[in-house]
Amino acid sequence: MINAAIIGATGYAGAELVRILARHKEVDIKYLCSKSYEGQNYADIFCNIRNIIDKECSKDDIEAMAEECDVIFTATPQGYLNSILTEDILEKAKVIDLSADYRIKDVSTYEKWYGIKHGSPKLINEAVYGLCEKNREDIKKARLIANPGCYPTCSYLSIAPALEHGFIEPKSVIIDAKSGTSGAGRGAKVANLFCEVNESIKPYGLPNHRHTPEIEEQLSYAAKEEVMLNFSPHLVPMMRGILVTAYGDLKQRADGSYPTEGEIRDAYEKAYENERFVRFLDEGVLPETRWVRGSNMADVNVVYDDRTKRLIMTGVIDNITKGAAGQAVQNMNLMFGFDEASGLDLIPAVP
Amino acid sequence: MINAAIIGATGYAGAELVRILARHKEVDIKYLCSKSYEGQNYADIFCNIRNIIDKECSKDDIEAMAEECDVIFTATPQGYLNSILTEDILEKAKVIDLSADYRIKDVSTYEKWYGIKHGSPKLINEAVYGLCEKNREDIKKARLIANPGCYPTCSYLSIAPALEHGFIEPKSVIIDAKSGTSGAGRGAKVANLFCEVNESIKPYGLPNHRHTPEIEEQLSYAAKEEVMLNFSPHLVPMMRGILVTAYGDLKQRADGSYPTEGEIRDAYEKAYENERFVRFLDEGVLPETRWVRGSNMADVNVVYDDRTKRLIMTGVIDNITKGAAGQAVQNMNLMFGFDEASGLDLIPAVP
Amino acid sequence: MINAAIIGATGYAGAELVRILARHKEVDIKYLCSKSYEGQNYADIFCNIRNIIDKECSKDDIEAMAEECDVIFTATPQGYLNSILTEDILEKAKVIDLSADYRIKDVSTYEKWYGIKHGSPKLINEAVYGLCEKNREDIKKARLIANPGCYPTCSYLSIAPALEHGFIEPKSVIIDAKSGTSGAGRGAKVANLFCEVNESIKPYGLPNHRHTPEIEEQLSYAAKEEVMLNFSPHLVPMMRGILVTAYGDLKQRADGSYPTEGEIRDAYEKAYENERFVRFLDEGVLPETRWVRGSNMADVNVVYDDRTKRLIMTGVIDNITKGAAGQAVQNMNLMFGFDEASGLDLIPAVP
Amino acid sequence: MINAAIIGATGYAGAELVRILARHKEVDIKYLCSKSYEGQNYADIFCNIRNIIDKECSKDDIEAMAEECDVIFTATPQGYLNSILTEDILEKAKVIDLSADYRIKDVSTYEKWYGIKHGSPKLINEAVYGLCEKNREDIKKARLIANPGCYPTCSYLSIAPALEHGFIEPKSVIIDAKSGTSGAGRGAKVANLFCEVNESIKPYGLPNHRHTPEIEEQLSYAAKEEVMLNFSPHLVPMMRGILVTAYGDLKQRADGSYPTEGEIRDAYEKAYENERFVRFLDEGVLPETRWVRGSNMADVNVVYDDRTKRLIMTGVIDNITKGAAGQAVQNMNLMFGFDEASGLDLIPAVP
Repeated sequence: MINAAIIGATGYAGAELVRILARHKEVDIKYLCSKSYEGQNYADIFCNIRNIIDKECSKDDIEAMAEECDVIFTATPQGYLNSILTEDILEKAKVIDLSADYRIKDVSTYEKWYGIKHGSPKLINEAVYGLCEKNREDIKKARLIANPGCYPTCSYLSIAPALEHGFIEPKSVIIDAKSGTSGAGRGAKVANLFCEVNESIKPYGLPNHRHTPEIEEQLSYAAKEEVMLNFSPHLVPMMRGILVTAYGDLKQRADGSYPTEGEIRDAYEKAYENERFVRFLDEGVLPETRWVRGSNMADVNVVYDDRTKRLIMTGVIDNITKGAAGQAVQNMNLMFGFDEASGLDLIPAVP
Repeated sequence: MINAAIIGATGYAGAELVRILARHKEVDIKYLCSKSYEGQNYADIFCNIRNIIDKECSKDDIEAMAEECDVIFTATPQGYLNSILTEDILEKAKVIDLSADYRIKDVSTYEKWYGIKHGSPKLINEAVYGLCEKNREDIKKARLIANPGCYPTCSYLSIAPALEHGFIEPKSVIIDAKSGTSGAGRGAKVANLFCEVNESIKPYGLPNHRHTPEIEEQLSYAAKEEVMLNFSPHLVPMMRGILVTAYGDLKQRADGSYPTEGEIRDAYEKAYENERFVRFLDEGVLPETRWVRGSNMADVNVVYDDRTKRLIMTGVIDNITKGAAGQAVQNMNLMFGFDEASGLDLIPAVP
Repeated sequence: MINAAIIGATGYAGAELVRILARHKEVDIKYLCSKSYEGQNYADIFCNIRNIIDKECSKDDIEAMAEECDVIFTATPQGYLNSILTEDILEKAKVIDLSADYRIKDVSTYEKWYGIKHGSPKLINEAVYGLCEKNREDIKKARLIANPGCYPTCSYLSIAPALEHGFIEPKSVIIDAKSGTSGAGRGAKVANLFCEVNESIKPYGLPNHRHTPEIEEQLSYAAKEEVMLNFSPHLVPMMRGILVTAYGDLKQRADGSYPTEGEIRDAYEKAYENERFVRFLDEGVLPETRWVRGSNMADVNVVYDDRTKRLIMTGVIDNITKGAAGQAVQNMNLMFGFDEASGLDLIPAVP
Repeated sequence: MINAAIIGATGYAGAELVRILARHKEVDIKYLCSKSYEGQNYADIFCNIRNIIDKECSKDDIEAMAEECDVIFTATPQGYLNSILTEDILEKAKVIDLSADYRIKDVSTYEKWYGIKHGSPKLINEAVYGLCEKNREDIKKARLIANPGCYPTCSYLSIAPALEHGFIEPKSVIIDAKSGTSGAGRGAKVANLFCEVNESIKPYGLPNHRHTPEIEEQLSYAAKEEVMLNFSPHLVPMMRGILVTAYGDLKQRADGSYPTEGEIRDAYEKAYENERFVRFLDEGVLPETRWVRGSNMADVNVVYDDRTKRLIMTGVIDNITKGAAGQAVQNMNLMFGFDEASGLDLIPAVP
């Protein structure tokens, strides 16, 4: 049994952490921190947890919490954790950061895209990018996890195998992504009101959304060369879910041939055959966000277009679960030697 | 470990049974029966269950299944089970019926409101009305459960304590209920298309919805006198959830006084203090369907109107879970001596 | 051609006024006032109006505007207009107020329910309650219109004929109302975010919502006796639309008989036969908000329950149109001698 | 005043024709034809039109109607019109076909992609592709209009100027499109139920959706060379609206330079400066479907990505209005010499 603290517990990712950890047999939630709701009972804000958790929202004194807790989750705005995290804290507690603060290895890239001065650049190198399917072994040994962004997680799982095997041209990749509104957070903004979001779809952040460098960095590791791509997110009138539809030109070989559909499907099949949270779908079956909603699953498939010589790579996750809190718990499970799926036996409620 | 069969597994209640039982540690799903999808892999229809359950939809040979199974759930149209159920089947397997076939004790009332000739009226008497909070002890001993309707469950939990204690006039009760669209089933009907349901609300079935006699019968037991009421259901553009807003005139006592708010709150508090699936909310907190979505919980509260001398009784459940499949599993747990909450530790995903 | 100003033009009712008046052949929109967006182009905020209206949001200097405008619409928070309106302004321009400031004749009732000190109580008496179907002749002569609330409009049109003819007991009336989210306004509040509203329904403001005294006052005029009722509003996950489901006990006559369904239907038929914006539906047809969405229509019907001796009165309007801006324009048309339906030939888009 | 008939009046495009024509000052709706609802009053099915149009659904005897009507709209399934249309009919009445029957000039392409034998191939050549912004002069003289598909309309308006001016590589075009559910029609299918569509997004028809050859043909005219592209449609949980996000590689010139953002914006500006139904948005403003909902407008913009040397072309329309019925009326207006915008002064209701 370990003790956990959640900083930023009243955002959507924080609330999802609570939902998952409340049923996790190895974890005791010790602190729920929230600046906006300090002193209020958490279950009065997120009433889904009524009678299940009875705890007041507290201050986020990270140093004090590090003394009492084995793991600290930070679901906080960009720039917050990097301004307070220290070597001293990491010696006492493991930290899983759901913000972008330690995701990008090049500090100047982080500072440029986020417009924030990084407060603890020395820790960046130590941080392990917590995409479990990719960095499982490093995660097990890590003290500090940079929990991946929702779009990067979905993009990576959909595209990486094609790049790893050189099936597509790295410079041809275009990611057209669609996200539910919870991705925009729980802040009180006119743009996220029901009456502004419902019955409409829009692109946003074109052409330079902040998740772009994170996706490029991770896919560059997969391609073993620099990947520069277009990433176009869209806001969809639904609460949860991300769909990635990505496009890549099939890479012609020296002999003029193209990788075949069979080869590509085999590679994806193999990439995910032992993964418990990634399902590579049958040929012709396209992913839908509803089949993963509220779960830690990713559904992935590829469509081979012989006519245009392009590969269409598609994937879905729940942005709050596999794209944030679920993956954070998966990381925690790895770090503490629990079963990787512990607490994550979440089956989507349909409808 | 017991073996279970689900007849009508590809409706929404059937799919919810699958979702719940797939995680139930004491149950093995042996048969998933569906006329419409016979021979297809269940996970190709409800892909939320991909990699979790791998089973073909089969015929619903109830007699053969009774040999192999300990419990049979029937999530079938009205009139189906009563035409095939026999004493012989019940000797071999316990049956939990999610249709209305055995809910109403008076067979002529059933036949009038449903327009169906009952095929096994002799079994009606034996059937236990499976509202766990009310009939727990009888359920433990039952072979045949009439699993309550979604509206009746929510109505009963909201209103019964007020009637049991004589706080309101039985003849004054009005139930204004609102339901998500899953209550209309998974049949291919124009009226239930996204474009017909979305962005609209409507009443339906006024003034004689089929759940009326079931509600009246159960509330009459609570009031210990005949209750005749108005029940007005409405269709809401959401998938899951039922909200009941019920009205009753406070019953004046011989001395001219009225029951006080404190008395009423105490009675409700007491009624539900030991219930694991009913939460009587704090004064002033009104129920919202989102806080119970996907779970087996019922949230209930009352509002005392001193001005009009009326009691407003409100309650919410998830119509597919506590209103159907969840309650069915709760019944099963009681019948087989499992922990009443086994498999039902479902926390609503928010948002 | 008259000149119009809209104060509070960037709320939902204000935007609806713009949408309607932009196509009104007799009206020129002179000023669009908005505190929050002063100096910005209106079409950059409400882009539906791009290329149609090109005007900057301005300050709301009501005295200056009264010089230039024939009519001023105020879609402002409660208490704002009553603090600035003067006899002098009314001598220059007609004012149609969409707030509650002049709706309630008894100033102490207003001050109690709204918790606001009324700043111009002398003008209350002059104000005409702008329910066109009821006060048409007075409206034609008015300088100051108290444009009715959305819930009161829908409630009145649904219930008044039954009270006027003494078909139901005034003290038995219960109004269970359901509204889309636009009724909650365009303010940046967490409670109105997409992720908080969607896929849920809840009651709010029980038992003392502010529209109660307005509804009671108007229905008392209809009943010619004091009406005290329960009014229970609910928030529905849709953008526009109000549905009222109201209940009244049939009033027994001296001879023991009850009013018949035929009598009641005849009275409603007659009440609305010459109305262009009220449709009394055929027997058995229940109103749905989608059939009036975006239009100035009200659909009304009654259900006669012989079993419980109750009348169920149902009605729907679009809360922003007939419940606010549409009715305001209808009032303007009457006040200036235009065709009552001018600019209001809005047919709901379906779906 | 002309007489019009609508065949297929009870589908969503048919209903939108009714909504628009009901307010059109030059048109009298003579016939509303519907196989499924023959003999029923149209306003009992589409109740938005109650009290506005009082007409029974009739048989679609196109020859008889051609005698009495000036224009016949066919909103019918693919293959229906081409099996019954004759030279004789066209001599008597103009026909505007909302199906795909006459959109594709090469009959074998039509037959291959639609799997239908074309019944009147001789008429294909005469048919004018009714994209008003492109073929205005030909439309004025036409007897038979092939009203464009919703996706092709939105794609063409978004992409054509870039291809016409050679700004992008024709072979690099990728169209990622997102549509509301009304595009799937009003048929009773499980896949289109509220509970199957809501809270989910999915791609469909990859990589060979039927609109592909139509889009390729029209964009080839614009590029003056053959365009082969990827077209990926997605189903969004909303009722109306199409968003196109298209990608094209900037075409390098002989001197190594690329077209500049300024050049491209100028070309788009010019292309649409005189168009009443296309708005080229300000730099940095991205289109949202809500701003065109229920109207005949198209909002278009481009995003220039200097980093990846790609042009992102975005556009939105309402799929039922500009994407079907609105454009059909725009065509009719041109054909009969009415003002092009007659009956189309539809301002989106927001929210």
